[in-house]
Parts: sequence; structure tokens; C-alpha cells
Amino acid sequence: MNKRLGVLLSGRGSNFEALADSITANRIPNAEIAIVLSNREGAPGLDRAKSRNIPARAIPSKGLERETYDREVVAVLNEHKVDLVCLAGYMRLLSPYFVGAFPNGILNIHPSLLPSFPGLESQRQALEYGVKFAGCTVHFVDENLDAGPIVLQAVVPVNDDDTEDSLSAKILQEEHKIYSEAVRIVLEGRYKIEGRRVLHTNGRSM
Amino acid sequence: MNKRLGVLLSGRGSNFEALADSITANRIPNAEIAIVLSNREGAPGLDRAKSRNIPARAIPSKGLERETYDREVVAVLNEHKVDLVCLAGYMRLLSPYFVGAFPNGILNIHPSLLPSFPGLESQRQALEYGVKFAGCTVHFVDENLDAGPIVLQAVVPVNDDDTEDSLSAKILQEEHKIYSEAVRIVLEGRYKIEGRRVLHTNGRSM
Repeated sequence: MNKRLGVLLSGRGSNFEALADSITANRIPNAEIAIVLSNREGAPGLDRAKSRNIPARAIPSKGLERETYDREVVAVLNEHKVDLVCLAGYMRLLSPYFVGAFPNGILNIHPSLLPSFPGLESQRQALEYGVKFAGCTVHFVDENLDAGPIVLQAVVPVNDDDTEDSLSAKILQEEHKIYSEAVRIVLEGRYKIEGRRVLHTNGRSM
Repeated sequence: MNKRLGVLLSGRGSNFEALADSITANRIPNAEIAIVLSNREGAPGLDRAKSRNIPARAIPSKGLERETYDREVVAVLNEHKVDLVCLAGYMRLLSPYFVGAFPNGILNIHPSLLPSFPGLESQRQALEYGVKFAGCTVHFVDENLDAGPIVLQAVVPVNDDDTEDSLSAKILQEEHKIYSEAVRIVLEGRYKIEGRRVLHTNGRSM
């Protein structure tokens, strides 16, 4: 039985496509993407999902309270029997209700070496701060912004001639690699959490 | 004419010894350590300086206001014609007076990938946060804690079996390398500062 992923996105969802490619290429074995959801109508990621014959739909969040909205989303994820939720550029904080519905079952990818540069425009923040190394982070999601235990990180050097675009491109390449790797680790249960540390183990099924 | 370094420390000053070794080995050419100062009587780094025939003394800070104390320290640094001040485990914030006395002329090394984990016990903070990469940072010093433009950083992986000691040892090795490298870059004037970014150039003398 395949493990079933639910992907949440708000934009183009390039990390969604990377996950889909990794499943096709068996870099994430025994998995499928059961549903792609967006809080925004017309998010390009929805069309990209449909063109891969993956069920996809918008659930507009406008005007709804956070938890009311999240209850709708969780209901749809449960309808599709989702085992693991993957955020891929999903521009909303999750309510405690949502987080509680998928214990250790929600991952996010963020384009910085957390805890540096949470929030928006992390690559620009990194460049303006003048760090010499930047990177990306896959972490479990809790109700705080870009927090939660870290599964994997990757590092890229920041060069003197880097621009926001060139740095973002380098980081994005690493994002696509470590997100798939992290999803595989979590689906195969090859980790344990001690405090905030995610330690790697030989695995049990999720 | 050698460039003259002033080193400030509060403890063992292993980074002071790394700088002294680098000068001896000509990894920092045309430089000498003119004076080692400590705010703490009996700081082991003072004895280590004396055993290398480097002038060293304590200037106890107890009971003095920050700027009053800093005026004393700056006076001694000036007496010794110091060109560049290197903090090496110096457990005090500098006053604006001190910072203003050495424009772009004070460096610090911090055992984290700033802006992550400023302050004390950075290695423990990193371990407890659960980051997968840690490191160290050489930066120009301003009046804020572990802030100021970054000259160099180095990265080390955090392994599942790392302890505070093993991680600190790995980071310290990198500290010793990048601090010497950064001092050389600054002494040779091979940098320019744009915003907060320190960019590397072909050099002019400091």
C-alpha cells in the first residue's frame, strides 16, 4: 500500500513538482500524491498537478477564521486518506487544530538555515545580512512560523557576486533534493525526536 | 613595518594562541601581537601570552562603568600603537566610545553561524535547537552583541552522536583557521563593506 501525501501550496509549487518527480523516479518509494490543495484560486501549482493527473483543487481561505478554514482543509485531506502533509510554499500558519490532526505528520521546507531568517524573502534577508553561507531546512510543522524540529538542512555558499535571484536558484536546487530525502526518511519512520533534535534511525513504518 | 594587533580576552584565549601561531608561521605576514589585555585577573590567556614573550596584563573591570573602563583599555591599546583589535573570548560588550576609537578595526569570532545563536553557549544552543549544520563567524564589532558585518564564516556538520564537547571541538578547529584568514584579509585591506556585506577585493593596506 502506497503512503499518501497531501501537498499544500499557494503559488507555483516547484517543491511539489520535485516531490512528484522523486516519486516517479522511485527516490521516494511506495508513495503517491493523493491531493494537492491551494488556499488561492489560480495558483499555478494546481494546473501543474492536473497536468500530472493528480487531483488538485483550491479551497479559498478568504474571510474564514483560521481554524474554520483548517477544519475544511483537514476534512479534505482525510477524505483523501493522507498520511503525510507537505507544505510547498503554503503561505499560511497552521492552527493548533490542524497541527494536532497530523502529529509528526506535517513537513515544511524553508529557504534558509533556520533559525536564521524565518518568514518572507529569506534569501534577500540572508544576502542583506551578509552571511557567507545560506541554505534550506526541512522541518516538522508546529503552530509557530518556520519552527518545529529539523529533519534535514543543506548549505550553499554565498558568493560576492550573488544576487537574490542567483542565491535563490542555488538554494532551490538543494530544496528539491532534501525535501524528497526528508519525506522518504519520515515515511519510512527512520527517525526519532529527542527534545527538538531529529535523530536518524534504521526505521519503522510511519 | 609590522601591523600591530591588540588581543582582548577573558579566559584561556585559544583563539589568541591560534593568531600567535599564524603570525609565527607567516600565515598572517607582517604582523605582531603588540599587547594582550584581559578584564579578568588570572585569565589563563595572560600567562600563555607571557610565556610567548608577548606583553600581557589584566585591567580589572569590576565596579567601573562601561565607558570609563573602555577609555582605560583604549588608552592602553593606543600606547601600544595597536592597528587592529581582536576579541578572543572577551566577555564584554564594547561601548560606542570603544567602537568609535577603532573604525572597522575591531574583529570578533563567535562559535555559531550568525545570526543564529548569538550570546553564550552557542554550541549548546545549536545542539538543543537541532540544527544539522553549525559553524563560526568572524565579524567586525559594533556596540551590539555578536552583530556587525561578517568577514568569514565556516560550516561544520552536526552529527546525531555529537555532544556539546565534540561539536565545540569541531567548531574551534574552524575558528582557528578563519580567524587568522580574516585578520589577514583585514590587515591587507582586501575587502570593502557594502551595507552589511563584506566583499573581497584585491586590497590596499589597512
